[in-house]
Amino acid sequence: MDTKALRDISYGLYAIGTENEGKKYGCIVNTVFQITSVNPMICVSMNKDNATHDAIKASGKFSAAVLSEDTDPGVIGLFGFKSSRDVDKFADVIHTMVAGVPVVKEAATAYLVCEVVSFVDAETHSLILGRVIEGEKLFPLQPMTYKYYHEVVKGKAPKNAPTYVEEKPQSTSHVCDICGYIYEGDFAQAPADYRCPVCKADKSHFQVK
Amino acid sequence: MDTKALRDISYGLYAIGTENEGKKYGCIVNTVFQITSVNPMICVSMNKDNATHDAIKASGKFSAAVLSEDTDPGVIGLFGFKSSRDVDKFADVIHTMVAGVPVVKEAATAYLVCEVVSFVDAETHSLILGRVIEGEKLFPLQPMTYKYYHEVVKGKAPKNAPTYVEEKPQSTSHVCDICGYIYEGDFAQAPADYRCPVCKADKSHFQVK
Repeated sequence: MDTKALRDISYGLYAIGTENEGKKYGCIVNTVFQITSVNPMICVSMNKDNATHDAIKASGKFSAAVLSEDTDPGVIGLFGFKSSRDVDKFADVIHTMVAGVPVVKEAATAYLVCEVVSFVDAETHSLILGRVIEGEKLFPLQPMTYKYYHEVVKGKAPKNAPTYVEEKPQSTSHVCDICGYIYEGDFAQAPADYRCPVCKADKSHFQVK
Repeated sequence: MDTKALRDISYGLYAIGTENEGKKYGCIVNTVFQITSVNPMICVSMNKDNATHDAIKASGKFSAAVLSEDTDPGVIGLFGFKSSRDVDKFADVIHTMVAGVPVVKEAATAYLVCEVVSFVDAETHSLILGRVIEGEKLFPLQPMTYKYYHEVVKGKAPKNAPTYVEEKPQSTSHVCDICGYIYEGDFAQAPADYRCPVCKADKSHFQVK
């Protein structure tokens, strides 16, 4: 079986949010899709290791914001490569509260807020089925596809995403040890205050791999 | 709730195939996605009314071909707007048999063949979880997104798809009563052997709506 066949599947990029016991949780997923037309229900696929997974299980609701192509890669780095166990991801990101859950509004094209219908066990992941209770169009921007993120933003997938592919950088490449971003060019020439464009890690996080 | 918010979700276009009791079944879906990385499992969302739905339930396996931007709209019309109850969709479409199921190869970028793990009930639809047992990259073409199908091919969604949106054509527009394709221009000038570019219906199927 050629696993490259799996890479032709189309995905988007979505920021998920919830709040449980006064604490906000959020992460990035590639998979959000509408299941039913009438009384719309959507599905989100999420790794069980994400802090947000258990927080949604506890809170029973969540938001899904459609990120646009104009999304600051730093937002993707923050939501995709750090854990809500360690940082408040919403502290410096433009968001709003809808029906008790935080919604990322920064460069988002639209958002949906859902009440959980059920969690479906799928080994390492859960399929979270949610009834849409709120939804709004935001900025008239292009929704970001995973393909665009990968090819234009040069972003990577975190290790617990199904879209993760281990890459072999050149022996002289400097690679961010947080998000996997590969610096193009001579890293010695990068300014002292250089930060990873995806996850904002400083130069100390770049290692030759 | 603004249902337009749901339209910013990214989808692809996939031809599903199966065989049951010597008869081939197939349809188009927008939703195929990978759930797990190790021993990959994928999910397909499908309307229960599709003949292919029950055929997969009986056969326990299915194929999913990733359609490319070069796919003949007629293939999409055939697989998306006709029923396997009425026609053999594979009769005139380039396909192959893999592990006992038909796989659309015509302008497909890749395919996956799966054994069913479970059917998850989701009201009008089922989420079909499948273990990938075969997979192959085919033509080095661009996978077609639903957005491309809608905006470039000018294709529509069938009524039982969650992406279906009822459109109000101009009062003089001729609309295909099979697939909803709207003829642009003066229909009286269309040649006698004109066929709908999506579903290949002849002129008699175009009505002013």
